[in-house]
Amino acid sequence: MKKNRRSFIKGSAIALSGSLLVPIACQSSSKPGNNKTAAGKLTLSFEPYELQLKHTFTLASSSRTTTPVMLTKLEYDGYTGYGEASMPPYLGESHETAQRFLSKVDLSGFSDPFLTEDILAYIDSIAPGNCAAKASVDIALHDLIGNILEIPLYKLWGLNPDHTPNTSFTIAIDTPEVVRQKVLEAADFRILKVKLGGGNDREMINAVREITDVPLCVDVNQGWTDKHTALDLIHWLKEQGVVFIEQPMPVEDLDEIAWLTEKSPLPVIADEAVQRLKDMIGLKGIYSGVNIKQMKCTGLREAWKMINFARAYGMTVMLGCMTETSCGVSAAAQLSPMVDFADLDGNLLISNDVFEGVKVIDGKLTLPDRPGIGVIKTGDIL
Amino acid sequence: MKKNRRSFIKGSAIALSGSLLVPIACQSSSKPGNNKTAAGKLTLSFEPYELQLKHTFTLASSSRTTTPVMLTKLEYDGYTGYGEASMPPYLGESHETAQRFLSKVDLSGFSDPFLTEDILAYIDSIAPGNCAAKASVDIALHDLIGNILEIPLYKLWGLNPDHTPNTSFTIAIDTPEVVRQKVLEAADFRILKVKLGGGNDREMINAVREITDVPLCVDVNQGWTDKHTALDLIHWLKEQGVVFIEQPMPVEDLDEIAWLTEKSPLPVIADEAVQRLKDMIGLKGIYSGVNIKQMKCTGLREAWKMINFARAYGMTVMLGCMTETSCGVSAAAQLSPMVDFADLDGNLLISNDVFEGVKVIDGKLTLPDRPGIGVIKTGDIL
Repeated sequence: MKKNRRSFIKGSAIALSGSLLVPIACQSSSKPGNNKTAAGKLTLSFEPYELQLKHTFTLASSSRTTTPVMLTKLEYDGYTGYGEASMPPYLGESHETAQRFLSKVDLSGFSDPFLTEDILAYIDSIAPGNCAAKASVDIALHDLIGNILEIPLYKLWGLNPDHTPNTSFTIAIDTPEVVRQKVLEAADFRILKVKLGGGNDREMINAVREITDVPLCVDVNQGWTDKHTALDLIHWLKEQGVVFIEQPMPVEDLDEIAWLTEKSPLPVIADEAVQRLKDMIGLKGIYSGVNIKQMKCTGLREAWKMINFARAYGMTVMLGCMTETSCGVSAAAQLSPMVDFADLDGNLLISNDVFEGVKVIDGKLTLPDRPGIGVIKTGDIL
Repeated sequence: MKKNRRSFIKGSAIALSGSLLVPIACQSSSKPGNNKTAAGKLTLSFEPYELQLKHTFTLASSSRTTTPVMLTKLEYDGYTGYGEASMPPYLGESHETAQRFLSKVDLSGFSDPFLTEDILAYIDSIAPGNCAAKASVDIALHDLIGNILEIPLYKLWGLNPDHTPNTSFTIAIDTPEVVRQKVLEAADFRILKVKLGGGNDREMINAVREITDVPLCVDVNQGWTDKHTALDLIHWLKEQGVVFIEQPMPVEDLDEIAWLTEKSPLPVIADEAVQRLKDMIGLKGIYSGVNIKQMKCTGLREAWKMINFARAYGMTVMLGCMTETSCGVSAAAQLSPMVDFADLDGNLLISNDVFEGVKVIDGKLTLPDRPGIGVIKTGDIL
C-alpha cells in the first residue's frame, strides 16, 4: 500500500494540454511538486485509462470495443486508497469531463479521511452530474479508510462475506453463433444475464438454451416499445427459466411499465430509471426491484443507503457495474452480501485489467481477505 | 475496558429465582461458570438496574419516579462493549421480559463480532417485540466493535463530531411553580422540550416563557383530541417560539394528523406512530418528521437506517431517548451529527448514573474522544 510512489504532474496542467488519451498521472493538490504524502493531508491523484473489451459489446442502442475509465488514488499519512470512474459513452461522462471534475477537487479543507459524509457532500457539491467521477473519489476514500483500519469494507459494514451471491455474466446481443460461443466460455457461471431488445430476443434465448440450463436474467435496456408484446415475451421468458426482467421499456413510459410490473410473472427491475437515492421514492408501484450501480449513484456510500432504502421498501435488489477494472468491481462486491442478485462481471469482460481483487469461484463472488476494497494494483498506473 | 471482570451467575438461574429487582449480574453463555472471555467467543452478560429520576416524570398519560433498565456487556477476545435497555412501563417491557429475552440469546454460533447484520438479525428473530432488550445487545455490539477498532462509532459511520446538535432538555407536565423551577435549572440548554397535552398547555408555555426565551419544541404524547383546537394551539405555539410539534394526536387518528400536518405552520413529528424501519414507509403525507429512538427500533443499526431513510424522504429527523444512563444516551449521541434535532437528555434526568460519556457543553452534545460509544463505567455494576 505504501509502495510505488512516483512523481506526479499537476492535474490542471494536463487539462490545459488537452492530450487526455495519453495516460499520464495527475495530481489534484494545493501544493504542486510536493510528491510526499504529508501526515494529515489527503492527496488525490488520477489517471485516464482505456479498457479493451474482449468482445464487441452490443446493447439495444449502441456497440463498442473500449470503455474509458479514470483511475484515482487517495493518499493519507502513508496509506493509499484506489478508485475508479467507468464512463461508457452513453452516460455522458468522458476522460475530459472526469479530468475537469477531479481537477476541481480541493481536499485541503479536510484533515481526516474519516469525515466521509462531509468529504463526499463536498465532492457532490462541486458540480452536478459527474456521478462516475464522484464515485472514483468515494471508492478511493472507502478503500483508504479500510486500509487505515486494516479491515475489508464488508467488515466495516457488518456484512458476512459468505453471503455474497453468484454473479451473472453478461451475454451481449449478437448472432446465435457468437452467443453460443460466449455461453460456452461462461461455463463457470451459475447465472447469465442476457441482453435483449435488439430485435432477435427469442433467437438470443434459444441460442443460450442450446448450451446451458442455468437461470437467466434479462436486460432489455429500454428496448421494448409495446407493453402487450412485452408481457407475452415475459411469459415466454419465464418458461425459459428467466428469473427477472431489467428495464424492459423506456424510462419515460411510467404507466406502461407500472402496468407491466403489475401483470408480470417475473420481477421488473429498474436500471436506467434510477440513478441516485432521491430517485428511489418514485419507484414504488412502478418497478418491483432496482439495479444499483456505483457509477450511477456516486459510489459506495450512496449505494449502501440505496440498498437499505430498497430493502425497507421490500424491493428486489440487484447490484450492477459497468465495464470496469477489478478496482471498481471489487469495491461493489464488498456490498454484495446485502443484495439478491449481483451482475459484477465488468472486470471479466476486459483484456487489460490493472488490478487484482474479487474472484468468481464456482460462479460465486469471493471477496479477498484484504483490507479496504481488497485490491492489489498489478498494472503500471497511478 | 479489560478491567472489572468478576464472577457471573448464569441468567437462567436468576430468571427462575424470580428476584428480579435485586441487581445481580447475569451471564448468557453456553458455558456457565466460565468466567474468562475466550478468544473467538462472544459472551453476553446483563444486570437489571433501577434508574432514580430527579423529578417525578409526568406525561400526558402517566407519572413515575423510577425507570427500570437492563445493562448489558458483550465480551470478546479481551474487549468489552456495554449496552442498555431502558424500559418505561408504558412500552410493555420490564426487567422480567428483558431477562427472559436475553437469557435466550445464544451467541455460540458467532465467532466474529463484525458479522453485525447476521448477529442482529438473529437477535431480532428470537422473539417479536422486546425492542429495548434487542437494543441493549445492538449497543453493546457496536461499542465492542468500536473498541476493537479503537475508533468512536461516529468515525465508523463517517460522521463529523462537530456537527452534533444542541440537545433539548425535557420539561415535564407540572404546576407553573415547578415548571419555572425546572426551567431555571435548565439554564445551560439552548432548546427546551416542553411536554403538553395535560390540559394546562398555555399555562405550561407561559411558565416557561417567564424564565427563558430559548427555542422550544413541544411533545404532546398523543394528548390532543380535536384537530381544530390543535391547529389553533399550534398557531399560538409558533408565536411563542416553538419550532416543532411532536405526536400531537393519537397515532390511530391518521386522517386528522395528515390534515393537521398539511395546515400546520410547524413541522409535525411522529414519535409513538413509528417504531422501526418498516413503519417509515407509512409516514409520508401524514407527518413531516420522525423521532427515532434506539429503544423503539432495536438499536443503533436500525436507527442509522431509519435516519437515512427519513433523509431520502426529505423528513425532519429527530433523535430521542428514554430515561437512560449515559450508556444508552452516549450511544444515541454517536448518531446525532446526522439529525436536525436531538432530545438526548435522558441521563440528565436521573440521580444514579453508572456511566460517564457524552457531555452537554453550552447546550451542545459533545462526544467524548473515546472508542465505541465512548463511555467509562463509573458504577459497581456488570
